[in-house]
Amino acid sequence: MPLIAEEPLRALAARALEARGVPPEDALDCARILVLGDLLGLSTHGVSRIESYVERICLGGIAARPSIHVERPAPAIARVDGGNGLGPVVGLRALGEAMAMARETGIASAFARSSNHFGPVAPYNLIAAEAGFASIVGSNATTTIAPTGGAEARLGNSPVGFCIPTPGGRPILLDMAVSVVARAKIRDAMKRGEAIPDSWATDAEGRPTTDPKAALDGFLQPIGGYKGYGLALIVDLFAGLLSGAGYLTHVQSWSDHPEKAQGLGHFFIVIDTARLGSPGWLAERMEDFARIIHSTPRAVEAIAVKLPGENELDKLERQRRDGIEVAAETLAFLERR
Amino acid sequence: MPLIAEEPLRALAARALEARGVPPEDALDCARILVLGDLLGLSTHGVSRIESYVERICLGGIAARPSIHVERPAPAIARVDGGNGLGPVVGLRALGEAMAMARETGIASAFARSSNHFGPVAPYNLIAAEAGFASIVGSNATTTIAPTGGAEARLGNSPVGFCIPTPGGRPILLDMAVSVVARAKIRDAMKRGEAIPDSWATDAEGRPTTDPKAALDGFLQPIGGYKGYGLALIVDLFAGLLSGAGYLTHVQSWSDHPEKAQGLGHFFIVIDTARLGSPGWLAERMEDFARIIHSTPRAVEAIAVKLPGENELDKLERQRRDGIEVAAETLAFLERR
Repeated sequence: MPLIAEEPLRALAARALEARGVPPEDALDCARILVLGDLLGLSTHGVSRIESYVERICLGGIAARPSIHVERPAPAIARVDGGNGLGPVVGLRALGEAMAMARETGIASAFARSSNHFGPVAPYNLIAAEAGFASIVGSNATTTIAPTGGAEARLGNSPVGFCIPTPGGRPILLDMAVSVVARAKIRDAMKRGEAIPDSWATDAEGRPTTDPKAALDGFLQPIGGYKGYGLALIVDLFAGLLSGAGYLTHVQSWSDHPEKAQGLGHFFIVIDTARLGSPGWLAERMEDFARIIHSTPRAVEAIAVKLPGENELDKLERQRRDGIEVAAETLAFLERR
Repeated sequence: MPLIAEEPLRALAARALEARGVPPEDALDCARILVLGDLLGLSTHGVSRIESYVERICLGGIAARPSIHVERPAPAIARVDGGNGLGPVVGLRALGEAMAMARETGIASAFARSSNHFGPVAPYNLIAAEAGFASIVGSNATTTIAPTGGAEARLGNSPVGFCIPTPGGRPILLDMAVSVVARAKIRDAMKRGEAIPDSWATDAEGRPTTDPKAALDGFLQPIGGYKGYGLALIVDLFAGLLSGAGYLTHVQSWSDHPEKAQGLGHFFIVIDTARLGSPGWLAERMEDFARIIHSTPRAVEAIAVKLPGENELDKLERQRRDGIEVAAETLAFLERR
């Protein structure tokens, strides 16, 4: 795969958006989030998404120049109406509001509505961590999961991210969706003609299946059955219901209806760790925490025990140094504009 | 099982604690949380715990009359030093601080340290919901889980609860620990001489096992593998590390060392939903949300599609009306004092 440095990739991504009428500052915000996604190795949620963003702008599904409105109904709460703008633009604006308030109050939250796909969750967590904030960030998503015991998709595979900063060091970062596996893994099994474990998905009638074809016609299974299902609902309640956005089946699918507003919602809770103790205190505890986990005797000698986010942060460092892997088609699309 | 009404059970539980020197108001707080646990059907974390609480007070492991100190380093953050008191006493105090601050700021959080086992999580969420707060509540716990790829317990099966209130109606409540199943379920399989699914636990070397005996000597598996492991770490980071409490292997086991302070931590994040919209707005959205889930076509006709917490809240209503099931031994212990 071609390698490209961070700065040129960001500029390329931003120009592709500007060419469709996105204001330069918004285009840079959007590029910042998506390139961070690529840096972390989350390339399905990186600059490859610009193609669908641009398509939706052209179809009128996303507003290139949204009016974003921010209300502060309480000293530590912001309600952000994204004006159907690009998700990362709305998301970064909401995160900025939350961080600004939390500098005063210690903890704050922003709830965004009238938004669209906002990229991966981890970049928001990392930006918060760089400024010293612990964070919980979530978004709802198009419905792809059936409730436990149900035979119809009623909720999204809503992503949620958690991050705690280490002053002067690496944060601990968990960015997850609630499904056991991503649909891509089931598609891969089908291509190889292999059966899948019956814990991955159900068929269209809600029955566990080992047939990848039936699984793709059915629903992803959440981790831990009713626990993962419950978590997905909670993320939707915070991101969609409390924010004033769409939720459950009210969320529009960006792939089935690219011309319509998604009505997505996001939430951002940030905590200023400097109010809990000194940077030295926090760094010492975080390093001790990491040491305890890393020193665990291994089940298999060749496989290291890792912290959540460690692989992604390794990749980020490596790609910042060596360049970012981006699929040739994606680069070609961005260069074509 | 004997049935006993809520009020007499609370009085009985409180008197058992008072008899060991717990101040009357603290004893009532503790009884309030544990009886709510029994009402919800979480009897392993209800008044049956008083026996161990009392034993630990007698051994000096828990302070009957703690000095609880509260600091407010920011308008929306409280740090609570529990003075090694009873967990539910420390927990309710911290929750009260968080709710009082959030009335002003919209969202607030309390981080408690120097605490002990605080009962189930759901009662705190419910108390917050009754006052109109959405909440996230978590605690760390004695180490029983090995990190993914590890062969030694380094983290607890830390519980976390989420709740969103419905004005004038039922909240949606998710109270979960991250293990696939509780240890009790593995003990039951061993008693019946049955094998267990290999997703429930590993043996002492960290290898998946179907042998319940090997599983009990080994470690509970978290839901979704590294996802559940990550979630457990995040709960510990918020509840233990950020609070100034013990974390990971620094937490003392209440069963192995009942005479020692556990050094547990908890966190409480509460959001005043009245700042997000009117009670009518929220009630309408929550009812619509519940309707969408309940109307899902069923995978098996006889099995209803439910919301998280629905079984527990059904039980709460039924037991408030008919009386609470409490094991005869537990009642006998409380009556003996």
